[in-house]
Amino acid sequence: MSTTTQFIYGFHAVTARLRQAPDSVVEVYLLNERRDPRATDLAALAAEKGVRLIATDSQRLDGMTQGARHQGVVAKATFAIGRLDLDDVLDQAGDAALILLLDGVTDPHNLGACLRVADFFGAHAVAAPKDRAVGLTPAVIKVASGAAETVPYVMVTNLARTIEDLQERGVRVFGAALGGHSLYQADVTGPIAWVLGAEGTGLRRLTRERCDHLVEIPRRGNNVDSLNVSVAAALCLSESARRGGRN
Amino acid sequence: MSTTTQFIYGFHAVTARLRQAPDSVVEVYLLNERRDPRATDLAALAAEKGVRLIATDSQRLDGMTQGARHQGVVAKATFAIGRLDLDDVLDQAGDAALILLLDGVTDPHNLGACLRVADFFGAHAVAAPKDRAVGLTPAVIKVASGAAETVPYVMVTNLARTIEDLQERGVRVFGAALGGHSLYQADVTGPIAWVLGAEGTGLRRLTRERCDHLVEIPRRGNNVDSLNVSVAAALCLSESARRGGRN
Repeated sequence: MSTTTQFIYGFHAVTARLRQAPDSVVEVYLLNERRDPRATDLAALAAEKGVRLIATDSQRLDGMTQGARHQGVVAKATFAIGRLDLDDVLDQAGDAALILLLDGVTDPHNLGACLRVADFFGAHAVAAPKDRAVGLTPAVIKVASGAAETVPYVMVTNLARTIEDLQERGVRVFGAALGGHSLYQADVTGPIAWVLGAEGTGLRRLTRERCDHLVEIPRRGNNVDSLNVSVAAALCLSESARRGGRN
Repeated sequence: MSTTTQFIYGFHAVTARLRQAPDSVVEVYLLNERRDPRATDLAALAAEKGVRLIATDSQRLDGMTQGARHQGVVAKATFAIGRLDLDDVLDQAGDAALILLLDGVTDPHNLGACLRVADFFGAHAVAAPKDRAVGLTPAVIKVASGAAETVPYVMVTNLARTIEDLQERGVRVFGAALGGHSLYQADVTGPIAWVLGAEGTGLRRLTRERCDHLVEIPRRGNNVDSLNVSVAAALCLSESARRGGRN
């Protein structure tokens, strides 16, 4: 597996990366005016992990992040490129497997938010089709609040084919779609994969037809007719987590 | 109650406002290059509701929205100013009352997202302390996807006092906080108010002490230790909605 380097920014994302994969952090750039406790803590963490810290002006940080809100901290980090395999994920997860499939989520903020809830509820991987997805960009990594480092994100060639592969391995595939059964009454214990579509368009017809079950999040209001995809993902994953016991 | 005018932007927000409160829409401005079906539908809706449509250049739209992504559509609308009262809300909602209190949510995107989930799960009002909250700005209204028009948003002077007032009226107040009981096992049927704090800081001590119960959203992962406030609000409100029956 080869690697590429990329800039990560924001205190949360940089701190998470330093803690979880310090070897992947090439350098950390800190705004030279920052002397506050958060900056001091980060500098101490970088030193502890043996990562070089470079004091930098804001213009240079802005250039690295193309003007995004970096909070005065940027890290250059290496990322693995290569095909992560859902088979490996399933081998490890076994009967408790909980996978999140995204069909057409192209907004970086939404992908980052989905990774975050996937980690929180213990999902083993997030997968999305190559041609209808966004990669792990710096914006995604920031919103993911550390989850981009821990939840495998798998880009697949053909989502319908991936669903079939999962089903062949005994994973039941649930699509979130209007007109499905109530989420609160569905049997959503693992091994299971949830498929969520983008807001507005929802699941594609081919994706929807491949699902074993369609499930709807019951609404009570009269006006708002959909939820943000990360909110919907949280409700679905939470439902699987609660039924899986332990809580 | 007096009114003020403000710009609303984006297709969803402007359409929702035209449908739900056409009398409050003074004028709609549409980018003069747009001839697509969405623009045509909006023009037809404005005509149906008797609202004047003005073709405008993008520079003027940018000025109205201070550079925010307006999708080529802006509406000038009137908003009521005045003290909405939680007592009135409770009178109407009765035993089914479901209220969302926000303690220190100052990010417009998060407030908009909270209003959206509040509407979806049938909450009767969202309330926040005046000095630690954001108002219904155009950014909030856009993210709320129509909910800013339907869910009463109440600014209160003192959140701890509001909690006491609710309790005196028989409303049980649940705070979302680390270390609380599992959300999945709490008795969260109405009349009920949920209190959520901002990410990172959580509930203030005074707020937390006033709550009847503290409830935690069980997590399964090892890395991400908190959820976005609108995601947490969705999980809490969904829990009350499901226990309230009908789904």
